[in-house]
Amino acid sequence: MRTPGQTRQIVLASRPQGWPTPENFRLETVDLPAPADGQVVVANHVMSVDPYMRGRMNDVKSYAAPFAVDRPLDGAAIGEVVASSSPDVHVGQIVLHGLGWREHAVLPAAAVRVVDATAAPESAYLSVLGMTGLTAYAGLMAVAEFRPGDTVFVSGAAGAVGSLVGQIAKLSGAARVIGSAGSAAKVARLRELGFDEAFNYHDGPVTDLLQAAAPEGIDVYFDNVGGDHLEAAIDSLTTGGRAALCGAISQYNSTEPSAAPRNLSLAIGKQLTLRGFLVGGHQDLMPEFHEKVVGWLADGSLRWDETVREGLEAAPEAFIDLLRGANTGKMVVRL
Amino acid sequence: MRTPGQTRQIVLASRPQGWPTPENFRLETVDLPAPADGQVVVANHVMSVDPYMRGRMNDVKSYAAPFAVDRPLDGAAIGEVVASSSPDVHVGQIVLHGLGWREHAVLPAAAVRVVDATAAPESAYLSVLGMTGLTAYAGLMAVAEFRPGDTVFVSGAAGAVGSLVGQIAKLSGAARVIGSAGSAAKVARLRELGFDEAFNYHDGPVTDLLQAAAPEGIDVYFDNVGGDHLEAAIDSLTTGGRAALCGAISQYNSTEPSAAPRNLSLAIGKQLTLRGFLVGGHQDLMPEFHEKVVGWLADGSLRWDETVREGLEAAPEAFIDLLRGANTGKMVVRL
Repeated sequence: MRTPGQTRQIVLASRPQGWPTPENFRLETVDLPAPADGQVVVANHVMSVDPYMRGRMNDVKSYAAPFAVDRPLDGAAIGEVVASSSPDVHVGQIVLHGLGWREHAVLPAAAVRVVDATAAPESAYLSVLGMTGLTAYAGLMAVAEFRPGDTVFVSGAAGAVGSLVGQIAKLSGAARVIGSAGSAAKVARLRELGFDEAFNYHDGPVTDLLQAAAPEGIDVYFDNVGGDHLEAAIDSLTTGGRAALCGAISQYNSTEPSAAPRNLSLAIGKQLTLRGFLVGGHQDLMPEFHEKVVGWLADGSLRWDETVREGLEAAPEAFIDLLRGANTGKMVVRL
Repeated sequence: MRTPGQTRQIVLASRPQGWPTPENFRLETVDLPAPADGQVVVANHVMSVDPYMRGRMNDVKSYAAPFAVDRPLDGAAIGEVVASSSPDVHVGQIVLHGLGWREHAVLPAAAVRVVDATAAPESAYLSVLGMTGLTAYAGLMAVAEFRPGDTVFVSGAAGAVGSLVGQIAKLSGAARVIGSAGSAAKVARLRELGFDEAFNYHDGPVTDLLQAAAPEGIDVYFDNVGGDHLEAAIDSLTTGGRAALCGAISQYNSTEPSAAPRNLSLAIGKQLTLRGFLVGGHQDLMPEFHEKVVGWLADGSLRWDETVREGLEAAPEAFIDLLRGANTGKMVVRL
């Protein structure tokens, strides 16, 4: 444990080859500096683990800079300001920022966003009220160009993003919403959340399971999984169908390129649109999204699940378990 | 040969398994009826063979109905009206219609379009002035959302559509245009047509050849080939890049699904859009396209190649050779 004046953080000990293991992470105790001019010190309460972090553990150029070996990891977190050298942010305020994976964050006041912790639980700002929720909303509305009456299929539907996609589609007038997940318990949860159909992708070839669940085909596919799921969706998409490519968790730990989808040429005759996206490209939708989601939360029509792990030392395992699908809804670590 | 009152047509003798062979086709002599009320009889001068016809030889539901065994094939053709029972179309007029693969077409006057054969060679209405040209234009402009300054890669670039895509891109302000083709002679022809770079895809892995030709990446990919070409393009597309999926000739005769592209998950981080299309969905662009292409043809800035075969009996071989890439530019059969 840390002594006064010290804090703890998780560093990347080595880059994973394939599936990450606990040995790829290291818990360090370091000195906690006083805030420099314009800085604040935040005692983190909750931090996020997200699938995209796996990509940053590889040493490849991508949309987000790779994590550096022997340096602390980072990601979304929320906590309380415990010291401030800025006139703009005060001790005691609850702030959202990007320096998770550590018990205390020291960063410029301009890099934190003060949130109203009386309006929603703090962790909601890491999921339904934050980037996770906007990812679901923007991917469905702007990227997949959802229209009322569409039949929507979402993979990884019990995950943080997927469970919101399905519910938002229903709330926005979808004819039918179908979800896939990796266990019977998750499938049952999807039905509770209002999905019209749900299947466990371990129960057979995804193409067959999807065809049984949506015999008339699908108009929109929200992809969190890639690979066989994407191939199945391309088979089932109707003419003019649209796919929002959000994630490919089936491939993040692969050491070989994925052979699927093997049917992409069907996109020609069916005039399909497949579009990859990052939530960062859709910040303009935040006000519209925020207004809607606050309303849905207020009347109880939108629900979100959390899987919570306790303590910074649990973060590596929480992340690895996330990649294995051990979570239902958003996986967070309470510090 | 036919006697007076008879005509000849090519029927589908059997469905090809993999690559088509001459045995899949049969030349038949049949009676030529007089035109019924409202019908015309057209003596076909030139007919088109197109890659999409391969798909119609399979017994699968697609955007175009499959050809029926023992029934004549069809496709674009142009010819002279030799008999008419319609007040709207007169003997001697040159008309474009959809009943190729036969020496005479008997069809409703409403199903033919009279063209100005003094403005351009008849065969041009099957290529640069017809669906081929519109396919190139609509795919580049509307589907791939081409912008001046883009670097454009087109596969099958010596083909009927591809050679127009590259030239139209250059005429519309592309920074650079790169084409792939299947022989050194075709590569040389692409350079004559104004392509900045061209390569023979037999010379190495397409990914390497494309990277060498476009070290800064590409903004637009016009896909006529699919498979490895599409995979290479996904690797080279820059952030926000767009691919128009027009054809997948590398796969039309495959009996196994294509394992490529294996890198589609790159579309997420690069925020790529891949969009399949059919020219039928873009008829609204015809006036705009026609105005531009007439101007480009008038000042000699747009050129189109033809590979011409002689006689209806040569049509099956012309079609098979087209799939093998024996053509430069549009493959037509003069009857």
